[in-house]
Amino acid sequence: MRATCIVGVGMTRFGRFPERSLADLAAEAARGALADAGAAPALAQAIVFANATQGALEGQHGIRGQAALDGCGFGAAPVINVENACASATTALHLAHVLVGSGAYDCVLAAGAEKMVMPDPAKSMAAFEGSWDLSRRDATIAGLLAMGAGVRVPPGAEAEGPHSVFMDVYAAFCRHHMALFGTTQRQMAAVSAKNHQHSVENPRAQYRRAFTVEEVMAARPIVWPLTLPMCSPISDGAAAALVSTPEVAERLGQSGRAARIRASVLMSGDHRDPDRLEDHVARKAARRAWDAAGLGPEDVDVVECHDATAFGEILQSEMLGFFGLGEGGPAAERGDTRLGGRIPFNPSGGLESKGHPIGATGLGQVFEIVAQLRGEAGPRQIGDARIGLIENGGGLRGVEEAAVAITILEGAGR
Amino acid sequence: MRATCIVGVGMTRFGRFPERSLADLAAEAARGALADAGAAPALAQAIVFANATQGALEGQHGIRGQAALDGCGFGAAPVINVENACASATTALHLAHVLVGSGAYDCVLAAGAEKMVMPDPAKSMAAFEGSWDLSRRDATIAGLLAMGAGVRVPPGAEAEGPHSVFMDVYAAFCRHHMALFGTTQRQMAAVSAKNHQHSVENPRAQYRRAFTVEEVMAARPIVWPLTLPMCSPISDGAAAALVSTPEVAERLGQSGRAARIRASVLMSGDHRDPDRLEDHVARKAARRAWDAAGLGPEDVDVVECHDATAFGEILQSEMLGFFGLGEGGPAAERGDTRLGGRIPFNPSGGLESKGHPIGATGLGQVFEIVAQLRGEAGPRQIGDARIGLIENGGGLRGVEEAAVAITILEGAGR
Repeated sequence: MRATCIVGVGMTRFGRFPERSLADLAAEAARGALADAGAAPALAQAIVFANATQGALEGQHGIRGQAALDGCGFGAAPVINVENACASATTALHLAHVLVGSGAYDCVLAAGAEKMVMPDPAKSMAAFEGSWDLSRRDATIAGLLAMGAGVRVPPGAEAEGPHSVFMDVYAAFCRHHMALFGTTQRQMAAVSAKNHQHSVENPRAQYRRAFTVEEVMAARPIVWPLTLPMCSPISDGAAAALVSTPEVAERLGQSGRAARIRASVLMSGDHRDPDRLEDHVARKAARRAWDAAGLGPEDVDVVECHDATAFGEILQSEMLGFFGLGEGGPAAERGDTRLGGRIPFNPSGGLESKGHPIGATGLGQVFEIVAQLRGEAGPRQIGDARIGLIENGGGLRGVEEAAVAITILEGAGR
Repeated sequence: MRATCIVGVGMTRFGRFPERSLADLAAEAARGALADAGAAPALAQAIVFANATQGALEGQHGIRGQAALDGCGFGAAPVINVENACASATTALHLAHVLVGSGAYDCVLAAGAEKMVMPDPAKSMAAFEGSWDLSRRDATIAGLLAMGAGVRVPPGAEAEGPHSVFMDVYAAFCRHHMALFGTTQRQMAAVSAKNHQHSVENPRAQYRRAFTVEEVMAARPIVWPLTLPMCSPISDGAAAALVSTPEVAERLGQSGRAARIRASVLMSGDHRDPDRLEDHVARKAARRAWDAAGLGPEDVDVVECHDATAFGEILQSEMLGFFGLGEGGPAAERGDTRLGGRIPFNPSGGLESKGHPIGATGLGQVFEIVAQLRGEAGPRQIGDARIGLIENGGGLRGVEEAAVAITILEGAGR
């Protein structure tokens, strides 16, 4: 397969924009990626479009990308509509990478967009989740929570408000991790406080307010041990990346800004045993990515990972090989993963604070890493970051993510 | 890009199976493709899964393929969920082709499945379409029907029962074609009668009853000039194709049965002018496919095309270059496109009679063409067919299909 690189990125601010449509958001991100690359729409020979909820929330199925990008001038370029729950956007990126790498296409736009804040509350994400098969849902959650049964839940900490079922799932995995390794709620609060602090400097983040560890601990409980600032919010937003070859990057005058895709690995979890963390799908995918890139964790300067909750970041920091099993929490508490630390995680603010518009999330992570590798990340710039890693996961299959995508990018050097 | 071929195909019967689940159907097709190739599930390094309606009808979004194929033994192989309305399955095939062609994967399963017959009528396709924005829908249809305004609709012929909105759309395009070229309802009835006759010999077809042209003309009107047997039905079903390289085909002992993918072209329509048939997206996609394959219509032995209505087959027989503009109807009436005719179209019975389980349809077409190229089509075998073409379209954008996929396959020779 020939070499590929990202020649342009675009991204809306993530947030709650009741007045904006999915098409409006998608077009801003797509046009942004083209403008960033100095490319005309006709350069994109194909579009891979990621979205997770428009079918459920707005009744637009089938040809979501054609509908969302109708006014962008892509003409007869094929549109491939993909979904993979919260990993939809990096699934799109993976396809763009392989489509270009194959030689069948010279330039492909990966675009992801999500519109979760609906004018009509009856058509909201909460209503959507509420429509699920409750007996099956509750059995799944009960089964998962049983994993962490050895962990003492403080009295009163279960006084929870309405929340996404995924917060139940994350809380279950989190309690299991606490039972296995002694991970603490304070360590999770440290992750959350760090990410909220990071996003103060990110103009595209949904939230830009700093929290102390104590504030995170004292915030409204969601499902113990998760409190509100440890959980990613409901968000609108879009992000896009234009994938091409080093030759096209040079023709566009972007050789100095293009980010080479050193590895792009997609896998599907299938384990039923929560104790088999050694063989967790993210661990397997990471090993494959390191092999493909010829690199290891020690070579990486910056990571964006899937912190749908603060626990997710701790787990992934271990699965990706940056820390040993059970060492992710202490490392976060020590500050190893903050800006200026040994290996900064989520300088953008992560899903917790930058926001989590499902189908756009992975490409939002890519936007941040590309900015870092170019030295364009402003006050949150990480020195002369050269290698960045993106981990984006989605869905639930057995006790793992149904889809995990790991991408390793290399900057052009400065 | 390296050469690719289809080393195995699988397909359920298409029909109405209220007692079968999507997973049940998908697994039968996937296992069928593996068994046909003599391959273990582990050979499939990735799965591209196509489905169009499960989100709307059953509330399964996000990770449809992981859920449907959970019991098939594909382990951690990545699953890529795609949709492109009625062209979802060939979108999956196109991706499988490029994923293998790139060298990133050696073997990829493209699988499509659809479950449209619901135990609960309130969750049926009709209820789903009824939930669409009616003002927008009616404006679109009124606009399209205005195109064929010069055509006289016989008194009483508009006494229509409930039907899919797409039948309104097809009727509008059909009337426009009648106005432009003098295409007749009898020519459309000839297409329908031929396809129903073909499927008498297809054990996987939903309907296996022959109709005369007169019976088709006299059948229940849907939207003039379409009558019931001219329209594809609501169907359940699944189909799959295992895509790999000629080297893997040889290792599997399938060199003599593998079908080489000579061209795989996907495009998205964007025209607003219904009179610009010369530049219709299917015509553009066909030109690109002929160029890629180094072949022309005269080289093709058998065609499966997207006859969601009988008119669709007439239009596509012209767009693909088998007949000149306005000559598709007369050709069908002459018998040029029947088994034994100059260029047989839809020997399987087509969507009209074999059935149209949306997300499986394109791979059902592939199943038929592969059978024909292998000489395994039984009583509907077309001599020593060597080159077959598949056209699969979906959705509506402007006055064209939002997605058109054209695939040209070459048999190993016998």
